[in-house]
Amino acid sequence: MKTDLDQLMQSRNLDGLLVIGNAEHNPPMTYLTGGGHVSKAVLIKKRGQLAVLFCNQMEREEAAKSGLKVVPLTAAPMRDLSTDTAAKLLFPKAGLTEGRVGIYGQTDISAVMLALANLHNSMPGLEFVGEGMDDNIFLRAMETKDDAEVARIRRMGKITTEVVGMVADYLTSRPVRADEVLLADGTANLPLTVGAVKSKISLWLAERSAETPEGFIFAIGRDAGIPHSIGNPDDLIRLGQTIVFDIYPAEAGGGYFYDFTRTWSLGYATPEAQKLYDEVKAVYEKIIESLSVNTPFKYYQKLVCEQFEKAGHQTPLNTASPVEGYVHSIGHGLGLNIHERPWSGLTADESSILQPGVVMTIEPGLYYPNKGQGVRIEDTYYVRPDGTFERLAEYPYDFVLKMKNRE
Amino acid sequence: MKTDLDQLMQSRNLDGLLVIGNAEHNPPMTYLTGGGHVSKAVLIKKRGQLAVLFCNQMEREEAAKSGLKVVPLTAAPMRDLSTDTAAKLLFPKAGLTEGRVGIYGQTDISAVMLALANLHNSMPGLEFVGEGMDDNIFLRAMETKDDAEVARIRRMGKITTEVVGMVADYLTSRPVRADEVLLADGTANLPLTVGAVKSKISLWLAERSAETPEGFIFAIGRDAGIPHSIGNPDDLIRLGQTIVFDIYPAEAGGGYFYDFTRTWSLGYATPEAQKLYDEVKAVYEKIIESLSVNTPFKYYQKLVCEQFEKAGHQTPLNTASPVEGYVHSIGHGLGLNIHERPWSGLTADESSILQPGVVMTIEPGLYYPNKGQGVRIEDTYYVRPDGTFERLAEYPYDFVLKMKNRE
Repeated sequence: MKTDLDQLMQSRNLDGLLVIGNAEHNPPMTYLTGGGHVSKAVLIKKRGQLAVLFCNQMEREEAAKSGLKVVPLTAAPMRDLSTDTAAKLLFPKAGLTEGRVGIYGQTDISAVMLALANLHNSMPGLEFVGEGMDDNIFLRAMETKDDAEVARIRRMGKITTEVVGMVADYLTSRPVRADEVLLADGTANLPLTVGAVKSKISLWLAERSAETPEGFIFAIGRDAGIPHSIGNPDDLIRLGQTIVFDIYPAEAGGGYFYDFTRTWSLGYATPEAQKLYDEVKAVYEKIIESLSVNTPFKYYQKLVCEQFEKAGHQTPLNTASPVEGYVHSIGHGLGLNIHERPWSGLTADESSILQPGVVMTIEPGLYYPNKGQGVRIEDTYYVRPDGTFERLAEYPYDFVLKMKNRE
Repeated sequence: MKTDLDQLMQSRNLDGLLVIGNAEHNPPMTYLTGGGHVSKAVLIKKRGQLAVLFCNQMEREEAAKSGLKVVPLTAAPMRDLSTDTAAKLLFPKAGLTEGRVGIYGQTDISAVMLALANLHNSMPGLEFVGEGMDDNIFLRAMETKDDAEVARIRRMGKITTEVVGMVADYLTSRPVRADEVLLADGTANLPLTVGAVKSKISLWLAERSAETPEGFIFAIGRDAGIPHSIGNPDDLIRLGQTIVFDIYPAEAGGGYFYDFTRTWSLGYATPEAQKLYDEVKAVYEKIIESLSVNTPFKYYQKLVCEQFEKAGHQTPLNTASPVEGYVHSIGHGLGLNIHERPWSGLTADESSILQPGVVMTIEPGLYYPNKGQGVRIEDTYYVRPDGTFERLAEYPYDFVLKMKNRE
């Protein structure tokens, strides 16, 4: 949690933090400032002290909402990092003139590289350190959520499942001609496309002040068999084909994410697809039943691989980078990042555990692109302070969705 | 233009480019790949050769749409930059093993810093260089747009002005009680808030597949007097107060921006506000009349300052960082970045000129937050190949919007 930051800095021998970039769509900056329209900003925190937020003076009122100590500057503070102002004003204002400084933010790396070349000369007492994208102190702090953060993720879960329900209603209430689902949006009976469905989804999310900074997946047939194919807008929606609908919206302005997947087959399912679905569902249930607090996340990845291997599928345990079968990991933490600690890959660190405060996905799947099939089931879970697991939003697990306008 | 990149590399003595991060919401990567759901990717381009795009194998089909040489890897390529794979596979595949390499992208700087520390050891023949955020080779290439890029910006201009028109219609068709504009969205006559208007705007943009990655400004009264205050959601919409509506949407997925501002006063204007508006409008017209191809952009900043100073306002020319009067610069280039070259500040470089191919804003304004007033007028212009200037979308310049339901 945020309150762990000073201790994390100490344990990693960091005397300061330098966070660069916008307050929105920039997880470390959003985490410390609360977001808002503060752009190209610089935040400096000395260990044990409140962070100082340098902003453009035109954005001083937005910056003040952070509750941090705010110092308005005449131009974009990121620019000042590349000038003498950094050594004369920014770091001294924050009381940080020597020591190891961790550097963070989702921002323009060309600007940061130039700034660091300058700081190397103007602030020789400071050593700037990159901690990487998988295990830095922000990801460690963010790994456990406080009640307010969980409430925001839960709220996004409600919005997400509401929209998924609307999509299911929309799809199943379309007319059908042979196996082709029709748009029925006027007089001509045009076929319904993936693109048309995606437009509806975007709209319904926007109406609920949710955004999709990472997009979302609505893929049918062969595309459904490639885990990260987002779907071809021109593909037609047909009965009896698997549809993978993976939706991961965030609060508008770059806030907390939710992550959710259902796989559907409209009208009917082929026996082969139904079998695949049943296998994934059984493994999903086995995982949920076996979830236990403080277990390393990768334990469940191994469990899933073993289960799928028994049924003859390739997995990362028996195959290097499989392209069919079970091809990814069982889940990931999520929060201000769609993917964050704890990690669940077979080679994840032992400290990626399902400790109280963790919010993570469970998402087994099987993929056979050349058969035009893919199945994934995903929900987001929260490890409560008492060590029990809470699914943060409820939604049915039906695979075949019955068409309302068909005998 | 993109075709200038090799020459720009040569003129800056760069043997290679390293671009890191997602293909969306990451201008240099979007520029070279065309966007799409390709995440945590690495692109390496040796001067004079086609770029090589390293992607996660799950995203190989999305990556292939770029038309670049695509190399799928087992995990997120950004991770590989911090491991031996960088020296053994990534750079050799791109034929780049020695020389100066410019580094670019909007991405996780902690990850990049760690990668560079590793590359320093594993690839001692490569020197990695940051060019900064104001004048790197991407900003130079992007500074002039080809026809396809201008068409996309023009299309965003059409969407933007269409939505602005809907907002004007919506506001002026509300009922009024005393000077208070009412929501009239059901039975109770609740007052209309800034937040309610902003929700409509977001929705109407989403319906047109536009997104607002940088937000937008709809501010009334005192907030209108602070150029980058985005507006307080709880503020009520009242007659006779200045409203600054600055809207800068982009194509969904992190594409091209448009940038546009109108200032309105509903029902009537106070004489003081009308005077302020007339002053800004006169200066706006003067600028537009004097636009001339290949002139340094900052020439117009000086012109605007001189005009406003004659009328007794503070400007950056007579005051260091003014907080009232004319407090910003006259415009900026725009494209995949909302702010990009050419720059117009008084200290901008001489090569920031209005050359053919440039797309830029013209946006004079005057701000008196303590009087509850701010005025800005902004349009986006294109310098055509023949040296003439084209306003990329038309919209009226009325300050007072007549309320339809009021005598």
